[in-house]
Amino acid sequence: SKKTNGVGVQVEETRICVVMVGLPARGKSLIAQKVVRYLDWLSIKAKCFNVGSYRRTATPQPAASFFDFSNTEGERLRKAAAEAAVNDMCHWFRSPGHLIAVLDATNSTKSRRRWIKERYDSEGIETLFVESKCDDEELIMANIMEVKTTSPDYVGQDPEAAAKDFRERIKMYERVYETLDEDEADMTYCKIIDVGRQVIINRIQDYLQSRVVYYLMNLHIKPRSIWISRHGESEYNVSGQIGGDANLSPRGAQYAKLLPGLVAKSAGDRPLTVWTSTLKRTAQTACHLPYEKLSWKALDELDSGVCDGMTYGQIEKEYPQDFAARDEDKYNYRYLGGESYRDVVIRLEPIIMELERSENILIVTHQAVLRCIYAYFMGVSQEQSPWMEVPLHCLIKLTPRAYKTYEERMSADVPAVSTWREKGSKAEHAQTPGPSARPSPMIPAMSK
Amino acid sequence: SKKTNGVGVQVEETRICVVMVGLPARGKSLIAQKVVRYLDWLSIKAKCFNVGSYRRTATPQPAASFFDFSNTEGERLRKAAAEAAVNDMCHWFRSPGHLIAVLDATNSTKSRRRWIKERYDSEGIETLFVESKCDDEELIMANIMEVKTTSPDYVGQDPEAAAKDFRERIKMYERVYETLDEDEADMTYCKIIDVGRQVIINRIQDYLQSRVVYYLMNLHIKPRSIWISRHGESEYNVSGQIGGDANLSPRGAQYAKLLPGLVAKSAGDRPLTVWTSTLKRTAQTACHLPYEKLSWKALDELDSGVCDGMTYGQIEKEYPQDFAARDEDKYNYRYLGGESYRDVVIRLEPIIMELERSENILIVTHQAVLRCIYAYFMGVSQEQSPWMEVPLHCLIKLTPRAYKTYEERMSADVPAVSTWREKGSKAEHAQTPGPSARPSPMIPAMSK
Ligand SMILES: Nc1ncnc2c1ncn2[C@@H]1O[C@H](COP(=O)(O)OP(=O)(O)OP(=O)(O)O)[C@@H](O)[C@H]1O
Ligand SMILES: Nc1ncnc2c1ncn2[C@@H]1O[C@H](COP(=O)(O)OP(=O)(O)OP(=O)(O)O)[C@@H](O)[C@H]1O
Ligand SMILES: [Mg+2]
Ligand SMILES: [Mg+2]
Repeated sequence: SKKTNGVGVQVEETRICVVMVGLPARGKSLIAQKVVRYLDWLSIKAKCFNVGSYRRTATPQPAASFFDFSNTEGERLRKAAAEAAVNDMCHWFRSPGHLIAVLDATNSTKSRRRWIKERYDSEGIETLFVESKCDDEELIMANIMEVKTTSPDYVGQDPEAAAKDFRERIKMYERVYETLDEDEADMTYCKIIDVGRQVIINRIQDYLQSRVVYYLMNLHIKPRSIWISRHGESEYNVSGQIGGDANLSPRGAQYAKLLPGLVAKSAGDRPLTVWTSTLKRTAQTACHLPYEKLSWKALDELDSGVCDGMTYGQIEKEYPQDFAARDEDKYNYRYLGGESYRDVVIRLEPIIMELERSENILIVTHQAVLRCIYAYFMGVSQEQSPWMEVPLHCLIKLTPRAYKTYEERMSADVPAVSTWREKGSKAEHAQTPGPSARPSPMIPAMSK
Repeated sequence: SKKTNGVGVQVEETRICVVMVGLPARGKSLIAQKVVRYLDWLSIKAKCFNVGSYRRTATPQPAASFFDFSNTEGERLRKAAAEAAVNDMCHWFRSPGHLIAVLDATNSTKSRRRWIKERYDSEGIETLFVESKCDDEELIMANIMEVKTTSPDYVGQDPEAAAKDFRERIKMYERVYETLDEDEADMTYCKIIDVGRQVIINRIQDYLQSRVVYYLMNLHIKPRSIWISRHGESEYNVSGQIGGDANLSPRGAQYAKLLPGLVAKSAGDRPLTVWTSTLKRTAQTACHLPYEKLSWKALDELDSGVCDGMTYGQIEKEYPQDFAARDEDKYNYRYLGGESYRDVVIRLEPIIMELERSENILIVTHQAVLRCIYAYFMGVSQEQSPWMEVPLHCLIKLTPRAYKTYEERMSADVPAVSTWREKGSKAEHAQTPGPSARPSPMIPAMSK
């Protein structure tokens, strides 16, 4: 019996509830949501249960006084919301493969946390408490302005008034708030202080816990963007062959010449680092960029094994069953002697970790790899991501913000073949329409 | 200008001194030495400077009273030893590529640590303090018995007396010992409490620091062994071809049948998990093993790219220059469209991390991969490891202990071709001599 998952490692029989802890506006929901997206991307089924949205069904627009802990009616309603969320989560855990859930709430007192731990203990579910602690007044105000004034709690209200009310709400919590400390030495926890300036890790036991904690350690919230581009059109793109290590075509070389201008227009004089794969076509595409460069084997194109160097037409002829199987489940299909999208995601995991740690990065890579990186940031599902169209000669800018990643596409005015193949088709590479036909709006896309 | 290193990531221009902190017998030297071995394996030049061995040149066999902090002569000599070590280290850092050094000493007071930090600040070298804190009397006594009674400080002395004297020495340090705390909030540090039960991480800034800290987080000292075996002889081994995804030969299948007995003889009834690659020959070799199994893509054989499926003779004929280049620098030689040993090490890094976290593991893998894993545990150099002979049908048991990794080899009585190729040879695969000709002693091998 062999079991693997997205990180290539056996997931023990353990199920884990990540329990967020922290005052309002400390990034709990943001962290919760990122963890879920990261795990989903690694094929580890995860789900976030937000107690606030349970509370909202009974109390859609509470005043700050609702959160006064001496307000017994408020306290009763908030406890009921927590119980409802925990119950739903325990139910969710009963489905096979449901491994990690996040309980997103303030969980600000020791007694509340003890109650949660005992409840999950009795269900045989591990708890990993994750506290975000931060007393930087300026940062908290910025957080409130960024996300709280537009919260459903304040729909239709004046942002100034909403911010003021939200600060009142925080004060209610501050009166009873207890940080994780030695009293909870028996618990598994990770305490993130001042956005990672200090991290305290207690009783981390198994593999999945250690992965989640390492991920959390690497998060930052400095503003930055990530640019991604496929290499310029290659000789293989022109001949319709996949894989290989071909040179750029004349049009690909032209894209390489235009790329520095395209990047400068988007990035201004922000410092950035360029990452390429180890294949010639990405290095050639990056060669005129006036930034520090770094090449990663992990950014090499999906390995098409025995099909390397073939056209889709040849593959369909020589390996008809494989061709059909790949269309059926493109994410999991592994080329004979080569890789699947799932394999690529596993080897990209360190790249994602490094991207989380980094600031402005420009990645010049390959179609399948780009799809996987894009899927991580935009929360695209495994069914969709392998079929995503990413045209040649187009620069994509991703800007992670609180709950959204913003996307902008900029096409260079250089024609190229289209390498996009629709499900079931053979993709006779066709001339793409000119860039004017391709709109490049600023698309705010919800990351899942 | 592209720079890569063993972890595939640009090493910033930073140089880091890892400064150990902790009372005697807290595993500081063990940790220091493991970090150096891990970094070396990743091609990151690292070196440990042990203040004790500097002190020993002036005071080879000090009594416990030497470490009394009110003994001014002792204090002067110990400070002189620290200064000599720091000076040598600063000199070492002046060579290009010398990136990380470890200062292995107790560094038990805040004033000493402040002095160290200022000294390195003035040299433009970052400091990362790593404290091992542990107050478990039983564990400390076990540590003393394991490593201290045989220390050069006690050569020729009675172990009982040595242990007693060493406990006196610890008492001297305890009087002045100051743990890392808020007073040192400005410093970058990692505090490991009770062998990782709790870890506090403060102000980790860059990539290398975060790698070192993640590695430290994953270490444990529970007794365990790691068994490694190549797959049984494959049809390709018999025909002399490399790469591919062949089935086992009849003799390979016989090895698979005998393997459970061989393992049981060595491991008894200890629980263990089997890791294989995703290739048929390792799964077939493991198929009779009555343990949980897990397959890793990262354990697949070194990818020989265009040479996949060829014999060495064919490679020499078709790619004579490549063949010579590979012999010249086998570690760095990357097959056209394939991998080098260096590439394999990069993709094995998560495997090593997972091995550090795990207890008893049996790995069934391939020649090149096995060489890389072996090199990590035994500290084999990059010049030597690609040429190491690892016969087929032989189980290797590695047992990490304090400063040594013990090795034991057990041959199964099943003949196989030899796939070992000497530098410059074509390796016409030959019948190996019977197992009786291969001695399998218990070899205590110093891990570097
Ligand atoms: N570790 C952190 N510490 C402080 N702020 C953070 C952290 N991580 C993210 N943020 C910021 O927090 C904001 C998002 O706040 P979020 O809605 O996630 O807070 P919350 O803790 O869930 O609040 P509430 O209790 O009201 O639900 C973003 O502006 C983000 O930049
Ligand atoms: N984090 C740890 N905490 C406590 N003991 C440890 C830890 N890591 C390793 N050990 C144990 O410590 C012993 C090795 O001690 P080591 O010689 O490294 O101590 P040391 O701190 O360098 O002492 P000294 O100050 O005398 O040089 C081994 O028995 C090992 O199992
Ligand atoms: Mg929230
Ligand atoms: Mg020591």
